[in-house]
Amino acid sequence: MNGVDPLGTGVPGPREARARARAGTAGPTAGWAPGHAQANLIAVPADWAYDVLLFCTRNPKPCPVLDVTDAGSWTTSLAPGADLRTDIPGYRVWEDGRLVAEPADATPHWRTDLVSFLIGCSFTFEGALDAAGVPLRHVEQGRNVSMYVTDRACRPAGRLHGPMVVSMRPVPARLVPMARRISGLLPAVHGAPVHAGDPAALGIRDLDRPDFGDPVVAEPGDVPVFWACGVTPQAAVMASRPPFAITHAPGRMLVTDVRDEEYRLTL
Amino acid sequence: MNGVDPLGTGVPGPREARARARAGTAGPTAGWAPGHAQANLIAVPADWAYDVLLFCTRNPKPCPVLDVTDAGSWTTSLAPGADLRTDIPGYRVWEDGRLVAEPADATPHWRTDLVSFLIGCSFTFEGALDAAGVPLRHVEQGRNVSMYVTDRACRPAGRLHGPMVVSMRPVPARLVPMARRISGLLPAVHGAPVHAGDPAALGIRDLDRPDFGDPVVAEPGDVPVFWACGVTPQAAVMASRPPFAITHAPGRMLVTDVRDEEYRLTL
Repeated sequence: MNGVDPLGTGVPGPREARARARAGTAGPTAGWAPGHAQANLIAVPADWAYDVLLFCTRNPKPCPVLDVTDAGSWTTSLAPGADLRTDIPGYRVWEDGRLVAEPADATPHWRTDLVSFLIGCSFTFEGALDAAGVPLRHVEQGRNVSMYVTDRACRPAGRLHGPMVVSMRPVPARLVPMARRISGLLPAVHGAPVHAGDPAALGIRDLDRPDFGDPVVAEPGDVPVFWACGVTPQAAVMASRPPFAITHAPGRMLVTDVRDEEYRLTL
Repeated sequence: MNGVDPLGTGVPGPREARARARAGTAGPTAGWAPGHAQANLIAVPADWAYDVLLFCTRNPKPCPVLDVTDAGSWTTSLAPGADLRTDIPGYRVWEDGRLVAEPADATPHWRTDLVSFLIGCSFTFEGALDAAGVPLRHVEQGRNVSMYVTDRACRPAGRLHGPMVVSMRPVPARLVPMARRISGLLPAVHGAPVHAGDPAALGIRDLDRPDFGDPVVAEPGDVPVFWACGVTPQAAVMASRPPFAITHAPGRMLVTDVRDEEYRLTL
């Protein structure tokens, strides 16, 4: 990233980023381990796994599945050696759709019947945006990306339903087409934006009051650009009330060993 | 398609194509209802549905999921009004991994606990290849596309495992990059080729002896180009032996109402 170094450590690799998360470094992970894909987490009891997987399949734009663990496992092929219970810098624990804890370490909450879904994250294409000269206002401002619940319903699946969540980045108007092209080549991490321009088109009333993350200040000439967001399964948990779930905290992702470009379509 | 009209009916739409399948018109569906996506079918008992969905998720190149039905349903959002039991021009019925019937009508074999998966088919980008001047040798020759079992193992999922199957089209060498670009923009229907050139690189010994479909004659200067194929779940059924499954017959697809371009990435 151009002059952006949230961890203050030069350019740490993904293992170092995860070690720091495990050791307690908090904060949104945008800009951590540049060049490496990041992932959202949702872990549910095995008897809810089919519903979640079908929900993701039916809603691939907000919920592109990068990996699914076997029940009880806390390892992922995306990050060999990582522990899904500890290596994310912030978790949320849900019971019957209610947020009951926000631990830094999910180990005390983990259950042996949990199946974990790792879902693509738009932070993954931020390196490419940055390299192409698209400013990342939230990173410049040291804030979490802004995320909003929209009025677009996801396709339901079994017992799961809920609205699509989006992340928003203010982008200079002349760079919006380039941002679209760059992200569009990475469908596994949400791909092209779902909307650019008037937030009301997505049912968003006030950009200054995001549902998740921080408000981010736009520069003159910026246009709000909205990408489907991997927090969508959390919104489904809140709406559908499975008995138990563990997710990452919004903006606090698993940093994987997978290089960004492995998700880029080659044409 | 340029001068290719397998049904001999001008340019039939998808409903007419399905009606003809239902009425008994057999034969591979390449070129049917030009401009409309086609889909592979695999239907399994509900207690195998998670394994199939996870297998598809872990192997998105050969198994891109376009739709999943609820258990017992034989309708799909891809083709309102279609009956999955009758509207495909050729089925295969499997018991314990063995092929036990190849009916034109699957109704007598259907079970109320079946979950159907509709998986993208490379026939979907043939219209775009044709429009760009890439010849389709199998259609010109009135044959089914050639399909081969490769030596590449899919990532297993639960009780399902098996090799990747590919379809092969001979493409003039100078047009291979264009064929790659055109298909690469349609990842939901297998996307870019997995290989072009020496069949031995995929463990294929003899192009003249496909495992599914017909041999197709290459013209001088043609290069064999291999795309991941939606027959892959059938190979998994043969290898993994679920107690029961119904699939389409290779090359005989469900013609959907979805326009090809709906699966094309816009950049």
